[in-house]
Order: sequence, then C-alpha cells, then structure tokens
Amino acid sequence: MNTLLIQHILLDGEPRDILIEGSRFKSIAPRLDTVAAHTIDGSGMAIVPPFYNTHTHAAMTSMRGYADDIELFAWLQNHIWPAEKHITPDDVYHFSRLAILEMIRTGTVFFNDMYWHALATVRAVEEMGVRAAIGRMFIESSPGVVTERNARENAALEALRPTLSGRIQLTFAPHAIYTVSGQTLRTISEEARAKDAFIHIHASETEAEVADCIKAHGMTPVAWLDACGMLTPKTILAHAIHLTTDDIARIRDCRCVIAHMPCSNFKLASGQFRFHEVAEQNGCCVTIGTDGCASNNNLSMLDEMKFAALSAKGEARLPTAAPAKMVFDCATRHGAEAFGIDAGVIAEGKLADALLIDLRYPLMAPCHNLISNLVYSADSSCIDTVICDGRVLMENKAIPSERDIIAAAQDACRSLFERLVR
Amino acid sequence: MNTLLIQHILLDGEPRDILIEGSRFKSIAPRLDTVAAHTIDGSGMAIVPPFYNTHTHAAMTSMRGYADDIELFAWLQNHIWPAEKHITPDDVYHFSRLAILEMIRTGTVFFNDMYWHALATVRAVEEMGVRAAIGRMFIESSPGVVTERNARENAALEALRPTLSGRIQLTFAPHAIYTVSGQTLRTISEEARAKDAFIHIHASETEAEVADCIKAHGMTPVAWLDACGMLTPKTILAHAIHLTTDDIARIRDCRCVIAHMPCSNFKLASGQFRFHEVAEQNGCCVTIGTDGCASNNNLSMLDEMKFAALSAKGEARLPTAAPAKMVFDCATRHGAEAFGIDAGVIAEGKLADALLIDLRYPLMAPCHNLISNLVYSADSSCIDTVICDGRVLMENKAIPSERDIIAAAQDACRSLFERLVR
Repeated sequence: MNTLLIQHILLDGEPRDILIEGSRFKSIAPRLDTVAAHTIDGSGMAIVPPFYNTHTHAAMTSMRGYADDIELFAWLQNHIWPAEKHITPDDVYHFSRLAILEMIRTGTVFFNDMYWHALATVRAVEEMGVRAAIGRMFIESSPGVVTERNARENAALEALRPTLSGRIQLTFAPHAIYTVSGQTLRTISEEARAKDAFIHIHASETEAEVADCIKAHGMTPVAWLDACGMLTPKTILAHAIHLTTDDIARIRDCRCVIAHMPCSNFKLASGQFRFHEVAEQNGCCVTIGTDGCASNNNLSMLDEMKFAALSAKGEARLPTAAPAKMVFDCATRHGAEAFGIDAGVIAEGKLADALLIDLRYPLMAPCHNLISNLVYSADSSCIDTVICDGRVLMENKAIPSERDIIAAAQDACRSLFERLVR
Repeated sequence: MNTLLIQHILLDGEPRDILIEGSRFKSIAPRLDTVAAHTIDGSGMAIVPPFYNTHTHAAMTSMRGYADDIELFAWLQNHIWPAEKHITPDDVYHFSRLAILEMIRTGTVFFNDMYWHALATVRAVEEMGVRAAIGRMFIESSPGVVTERNARENAALEALRPTLSGRIQLTFAPHAIYTVSGQTLRTISEEARAKDAFIHIHASETEAEVADCIKAHGMTPVAWLDACGMLTPKTILAHAIHLTTDDIARIRDCRCVIAHMPCSNFKLASGQFRFHEVAEQNGCCVTIGTDGCASNNNLSMLDEMKFAALSAKGEARLPTAAPAKMVFDCATRHGAEAFGIDAGVIAEGKLADALLIDLRYPLMAPCHNLISNLVYSADSSCIDTVICDGRVLMENKAIPSERDIIAAAQDACRSLFERLVR
C-alpha cells in the first residue's frame, strides 16, 4: 500500500510531500503531484526518524513497579528470578505485546531483546509490525553446559529462522561473562561469525563484575571478551559502564556497539557511563537502550534521551557535553545503522520508518529547535503517528486493539503473580 | 459547583465515591448516595494528589530550546539576558499562559515563580485557575539599590495584593546573594517577617557562588543568608547543591524548604544535590521544582520526579535511596505544606486539588504499585483530568482554548525574537 504524507516538516524546518511506496520512502519533494491509497495531512506536524532501542528485555513489562528501590542482588534473588521461573510462553507473548504497544506509543520501532521464551516474542513482533533483533539466549548451569531449557528454546528459534519476516533478525545473546564460560563464549563467537550474526551481551555493568573478572582471568571484562573472540563490529555491549582507557580503545578499535542505558544505571546505582569521554572524546559507537521495565521502569526512548543528555553533562561537569543532536542520533540513526537496518533518516530510498510529531502540543511549543524539543522536552503525548517498514502502526494517537492488548497483559500478570504466591 | 467522582481508585487501591463541594473534598466513601451538577465516572481511573512546583520562571517557556548545551555564563550573557531585555508584559502574559497550560497537562496545579513583569503572570494565573506564589523580585543595579524597573514592578504588585484570589500569594524573591546586597537582604527579611510572607531565593547553586561568598564574607552562602536573617520556615532555597555539613544542619534547624531541581542541575552541570544525605539522613524539608524552560526544558514534574529518584540513587551509589513514595511526597504533599496550602492529599476537608490518572495507558500497566508507576514510568499521556480548588481545569485530556493559547504564545515568541535580531 502507498501512503502520501502531505506537507510534513523535516528536521531542516522545510515542509515536504513524502510518498511511501511499499516499505520505502519513494519520493520527497516540495510538492508531489500524485495520489495514494492513504493520505496523511501534515499541517502542524513534523516528520522525524523513530527510535531504535538497542537493549531491552521486552516481556519484563510484567514487572513494572513490582520491586523497586532494592539492592541489586536482593532484587534478582528475591524478586525477579523467582517470578521468572513461573513465566510461560503465553505470558511472554502477552507481556511482549504490551511492551511493543508501549514502544509504539513512545516512538520506538525496533528493539534488541534478550529474554526467555523468545518464540513468543517473535510472534508478538510479527503480529504488531515492528522490527526486532531477538536473542538466542545463553545461560549456563555449569561451565560449558547451557541449561536444557535454554538449548531447547534456541533450537526452536533456529528452526523458525527461515520463516521470519525481514523485520526480525536473530542474535546470539550470551547473558554475561559471569553466567557463560569462556569456552562457550568462544563457540558462540565462531558460530556468530559463520552466520554473520550479531552478538548481544551485558558487559562491565557493575564494579563487582569487573573485580571478579580480574580475579578469575587477570584482565577486565572487555579484554576477556576480546580474548574470547567476542569483540566485532556486530557485537552489542550492554551498559559498558566501568571501562579502563584500554577498554575504551579496544571497543573503538574493534568497532563494537555500546548500548547505553542511563535510567537503569541510575536506578540500580550501577555507576555512571562516561558518555563524554567514550563517545565524544574517543569516538566509540554509542546507541541508546531502555533496559527492561523492572529497572527503568518504562520503555520510553524519550525519557532515555533526556537522561542520556543531562546525565552526561553532570558526569563530565560540562554543560556542552552530549549536545541534543548527538544524543538524538544515538537514539535513531546510530541504532539503525548498528543493526544494519537501512533506516534512521527520512530520505528517498530509505526504509520508511518515521514518527509524525504534533507541534501544537504545549511541550513542543515554541519550536526554536525541533531536536532540542524532542530530546529535552517531549513525551509520548507529542507523538501522533508511527510508521514502520511503510506500515502505519499508530495514526492520530490510535492503535487498533490497544485496550485488548492491555487487558490481556493485565490478566496474564494477575495469573502469574497468583501462581507465584502459591 | 459540586462535582461527584464515582469509583475512583485511591492510593490505597480502594475505589471510592468522592464529592467535591466548592473548593474542598466534602465526602469520600465506598458509595455516596448523592447527585451533583457534574459527575465523572472513574472506571479504570485513579485519583491522586497533583504536583506543587516549588521553583520556576514560568514565562521562560519562550526560551524552550533557544540556547542549549552552552556553558552557564555564556548562556546567560549571550542568550538569556539579551532576550529578556526585550520581553514586554504582554509577552509574559502569553508565555505564562503557555506555561500554565503545560503545567495542567503534566499534572501541576501550583508554581512558585520568580520573573519580570509579575503582574502579567498574576493575570494568567487568575484566568487559568491554578495556584501560584508570585515573587516581588529583587535584583540590584548597585549594592542597596534595587533597579528602578524592579522597584516599580514590586510597587504595582503590592498595590494589587488586596484584590488577589485565595489561589495567589506574593513572596519576596531576591534573586541571589550575588545580585542582592546583604543590606537589602536584611531589609527584605524584616519586611517578610512583618508580612508573614515567604522568601524565595537561589542559593548555593554553583561552586563559584560558594567560593565568591567565602571570599567576600568569610562564610558559605547558607551561613551568609542566616547572618542576614533570611533563614526561616517560610524560606525557599532554590537548588542548595553545594552544602557543607554545617549548612545542612542550619537548613534543618531553621526548617527552611529546599526546592530541588535535578534536570536543571544536570543540564547546566551545576553539580549533584545530595538527596540521600540532605533529605533522608538529615531530615531537611525537600520539595521539587522544575526551574524554567531554558534549563530543563519542560515544566513536567513527572520528568522531575524520575530524575530526582534515579539521580539520588546514582549520587549515593545506593539503589535503596530516594524511594518512590518519598519522592512522590516531595513533589506533592511537601510542596503544598511548604506553602501553607491545605492540600496535597485526597482527604475529606482538604482543598480539592487532584489528578485523575488513566490506568489503561500502557505506561501505567500493570499496576503493581501506583506511586511507582507515577514516579518511574508515567508521562503526561497518563493524566486524564486535573482539578484545582474544586474546579475542573482539564477533563478527558481536553483544556478549553488550548490551541488559542499555544498560537498566541507562538506569535508573541516570533515577534520577540524578531525584535531581538533587529
């Protein structure tokens, strides 16, 4: 289906007609003398790239607000892990749909996921029309032995691969260096290279992880991942907070991608990512993620951009650090590029992923600088329409079956926590 | 006019009927057998206290996104102050209306303001139905001499006082210790005591301010304010970032109110307020403010609560710091109490200030913990209805004449910046 967007304002401030044909932007011009099956009038609206969330655990929407303000280990041990034991594939399907609904509302069209029962997440993504990178997760029961449940799920995911739409790719997602042995990391690295697939791993999130790694292997987590062959331009390092100068150089030279999650880092008091030093002074590729809803507690890349831009200035004691345009690029273009998605900018020939922004909402007025308003002021109320792969997922703030998706997720959640109490 | 709210969920999770009579909550019960001129059905909605913003410069909405990512002094000298020279009372009226519109949308019913042409702000507040504390501002041309414009405005404000509605109070708002002499601060302190009025001042915002004060007076800004008689239970200290142990004890013992603005502190890289130490360990009264739109860049207390709660954990390296309930209280009840407003909780006899929250919005689902969802996840999309002083200011997300207010502010803004360029 073709869609014609009439007189939407681009980031350069100019209004344009935009024709979407199939999944791509076909033509962008001051005026297009054409008709389309669907037309969206742009008076008072801007068109901007949407967000690409490079690290999350989507189905953890079920745990939004379930266990806050708790020390990290007690949080995992007493709250998160016991709940996760009871989660079924059906639960993951409903919680992933809730997550995707929230992502669409907050302007995100892609997420890089790591969670159990990934087939159910794949199903939710296919149905709801967004993009995702879904992890073959690895957690080991003992060194070199991936848990049985884990191996079974990965085999099922692999079997599904030939049938997936172009919006989904599979990654290798070993959880972390403290849950997966060096031996397994090396095997994963070889498989990933053979399949030309992405690797997605938590890295250098806490001081304890770094100290334990130095004790066990005589090197930092980043050096250890390098020794295991894990650092490639298709490797996403989630968090990467506690980095030495040598780690930063290694990440840059290997052209790895960092997924920066300021909200989660603050909430769990994991430490402050050094955005200015890592991204601005050393040129590492930094993208933005939200982490899961248990440690954020939402999936809004708008919140995440504001935290990234402001906390970088605070951390560096420098008001000029992390300017709005740079953070916006991290959350949009860099995220798409990192995953080889030919999108993230509004341009002819690119995949048609876009947000239509309501400029007549108080948070967007006045509009001295559209990107500044998006990074520092906007919230989901400002997002009118969401387009992914040429398909309109939300229009005029309406998403079909929103109420049903929320009700089903709430039912699944109630039932999960009833089983948990028993 | 009476309003009946049917089966809205309170913070304790129980649905209740709530009758508002005039400006107060008259009755709250499981079921009320009564009728009212106006009825709001609460299925799927919660009722919570609204936000009280204890430090802002409302009319600076005009400068949202106008000058970001710039060093503090260059920002003031080259951007903010030149623009402010051209602002007229009419501009302030339109920019204040835009600010109040944004506040209502984001759930705020009160703001403590410090800005030029305050009569215009008073007019906007009276018309739009919110509450405010409006400052008689003081900035001196030379020590002991308040600028002529300033003195004239304060006289006009004073003349207006007998005519003001109960929603507005006037404060004494000397800008800061580096723009107002000790002699004038002492005079203000005496006048404020005589009138039983609030004092509102920027204090200990930057390291330079502290260093300069120690050099000039041999003591910290907080000690200097005390020496000038400025520390009372009716004194609001905006920022209060750089505090010694002695400063913290002094603020606590004098029962001063701190207005904490995490977004502005991060954006201008002023330093990190030590929430855990000041509020939790030492029991100082901490409230939340947004600062003006030039340094935030919005007036959303929802953003501010999330920043306050998360940044406190990061600063203290303690995930248990600044729990959601405490931060919510700072943004609601403590703000109201600090200004002697008999509101901030939903209870019989209290002034009827309230928000109706849409629990069927993805950011609010599931609802394990309503306060956690409000602090860590919600944005303005979750706010359905806003009530202030018994009057419904927004219902079902609609505010009368919203589009006109935005258009008028945008016109005034365009004209201001055209004058500025000339």
